[in-house]
Amino acid sequence: MPRILVTGGAGYVGSHTVIELINYKFEVVAVDNMVNAIMGGKGKPESLARVEKLTGGVVDFEQVDILNENELEQVFANKGPFDCVIHFAALKAVGESCKLPLRYYRNNVIGSINLLEAMSRHNCKNIVFSSSATVYGPPQYLPIDEKHPIGSCTNPYGKTKFMIEEIMHDMCLADPEWKAIMLRYFNPVGSHPSGEIGEDPCGIPNNLMPYISQVAVGKRPCLQVYGNDYETKDGTGVRDYIHVMDLAEGHVAAVRKSLDKDFQGWTAYNLGTGQGNSVLEVVSAYEKASEKNVPYEFMPRRGGDIASSFADCSRAEKELNWKAKKSIHDMCADAWRWQSNNPNGFQIP
Amino acid sequence: MPRILVTGGAGYVGSHTVIELINYKFEVVAVDNMVNAIMGGKGKPESLARVEKLTGGVVDFEQVDILNENELEQVFANKGPFDCVIHFAALKAVGESCKLPLRYYRNNVIGSINLLEAMSRHNCKNIVFSSSATVYGPPQYLPIDEKHPIGSCTNPYGKTKFMIEEIMHDMCLADPEWKAIMLRYFNPVGSHPSGEIGEDPCGIPNNLMPYISQVAVGKRPCLQVYGNDYETKDGTGVRDYIHVMDLAEGHVAAVRKSLDKDFQGWTAYNLGTGQGNSVLEVVSAYEKASEKNVPYEFMPRRGGDIASSFADCSRAEKELNWKAKKSIHDMCADAWRWQSNNPNGFQIP
Repeated sequence: MPRILVTGGAGYVGSHTVIELINYKFEVVAVDNMVNAIMGGKGKPESLARVEKLTGGVVDFEQVDILNENELEQVFANKGPFDCVIHFAALKAVGESCKLPLRYYRNNVIGSINLLEAMSRHNCKNIVFSSSATVYGPPQYLPIDEKHPIGSCTNPYGKTKFMIEEIMHDMCLADPEWKAIMLRYFNPVGSHPSGEIGEDPCGIPNNLMPYISQVAVGKRPCLQVYGNDYETKDGTGVRDYIHVMDLAEGHVAAVRKSLDKDFQGWTAYNLGTGQGNSVLEVVSAYEKASEKNVPYEFMPRRGGDIASSFADCSRAEKELNWKAKKSIHDMCADAWRWQSNNPNGFQIP
Repeated sequence: MPRILVTGGAGYVGSHTVIELINYKFEVVAVDNMVNAIMGGKGKPESLARVEKLTGGVVDFEQVDILNENELEQVFANKGPFDCVIHFAALKAVGESCKLPLRYYRNNVIGSINLLEAMSRHNCKNIVFSSSATVYGPPQYLPIDEKHPIGSCTNPYGKTKFMIEEIMHDMCLADPEWKAIMLRYFNPVGSHPSGEIGEDPCGIPNNLMPYISQVAVGKRPCLQVYGNDYETKDGTGVRDYIHVMDLAEGHVAAVRKSLDKDFQGWTAYNLGTGQGNSVLEVVSAYEKASEKNVPYEFMPRRGGDIASSFADCSRAEKELNWKAKKSIHDMCADAWRWQSNNPNGFQIP
């Protein structure tokens, strides 16, 4: 079976993707530096320990920081050869990236260059990259397809994703043996339906759904909704939310595509539902799924926010034979199951 | 007097700038990894040994690769504090960057991140960056001013310059103590009027003027002119050539600006003459200056080349009180003096 290296494998999208990789009988080696993950017993991240329990499979894990070239070399030397790498490892807090840009450029860009060099040395030239719709910047038209211009990112986090995409693109142009698939996520939410793993943000959540979850479970009193005067159905911002298990299946589809002998070069795919939901629609769906009250208050718009963003995902449907299947209700129900079963995330209380 | 660290100080623009810094009585510490420079006697680059002879000044030199964080730290610890850094150190061959993109991203982008972090640690937050008009990509209008969109670069070399500009921009937004001036060169040519230092390309020259020089001096039989059917005065490509001594003065003007207490944040300046010259005009001017014949042949256009590019330099004139003074004749006469006095560059024969 194909052997896959997953960087950032203990994280939110990483751990859910490992489940799907195991379900497809792939061999998985995961690395993570554990700066945003919790170590469980036996030196394995708690998220991946639960993945093993859920799947009955095995995840070969090494605590490795991709900024450390020696550690990375050892993974390729001792755990390889790999048929493909899925590269999640990155810092991802937009606000923090504006305050500490050099930290983001070092971690995300230098980490990726280290990884690509290690792959080259070990003749593994097959990568699926965890990119983001943020590479598009403010949408020039809707829905956003993959031909939309990229690079006008409004924050350093988004720029790191753009830069890494460009580096991989140039690499594929220079060496036709390289295959690189960029997966541009819209807004990943929800969790595995078991409620055993999910998103475990440190501190105040940066994203809407984990914030709502913490209000619903009683950890925070009230949701702040920034702007109710946008030109949208109810005045609040509209985004394309995608269930993390759909996203995980998208990664498996991309890995399979990359292993296809006829596939060549660099390609990008949007992963979303193609549907836009407003903040108030998400709140309402969450209240229904959780049977909890989610109080909210309107606040002024935040600088840099846009009214609407949603994806045209027809390229992924056509070329990856992939389509998001789960509804906003599924997303909220699964997010709530995770949150209510694990009010402190992976932290052992 | 202000103390200036110059990275890539042994290179073409670097060494000419060091002359002007010494003329303005600045204290200069230069570092260079010597991959594109020739070591002279006494462990000093031959270019900087000649700079000392020309100016009667002293250049404190260390052979340091900015990819080596420890070496870089030692420079700041032992040779600082610095009032400003001029950052030239980079690989710069466009064609090579397309073949070896990772090498360019590592050298240029990671090197710059290392430098910025070292500066932060030592509280030196004042940088003048050797950027390039290539950040503009194919011109959307002419002349190109600094408001022209950037980022649509057609090669990895250009993208590294764009990325470093963006990183410095984000750094200035995050921390108002940072001051960063991007100098976007058009086409630097010529040499110090003494003919003692000049451009010393390895292998086949990538740029027009050094190629013409090697034809004029008899090292190459003929100049290939790519395209004579562009929409320009004579059908050949038009570029904005700038004398390297004008460019060197532009750097001193930028350093002085950056030391001005009223100056804040991130700014970019075009450095060019504002004049476009065609390939045939340059050939003709060179023949006149050198009194040599420069045979040429027309070849088909090269992919990625554009008809015309020239700068609007009014911002630099207004804010830096700087303007290019030297003519295309000066550029050719000085290039020829360097070439004919040093047919093998800095190489000791």
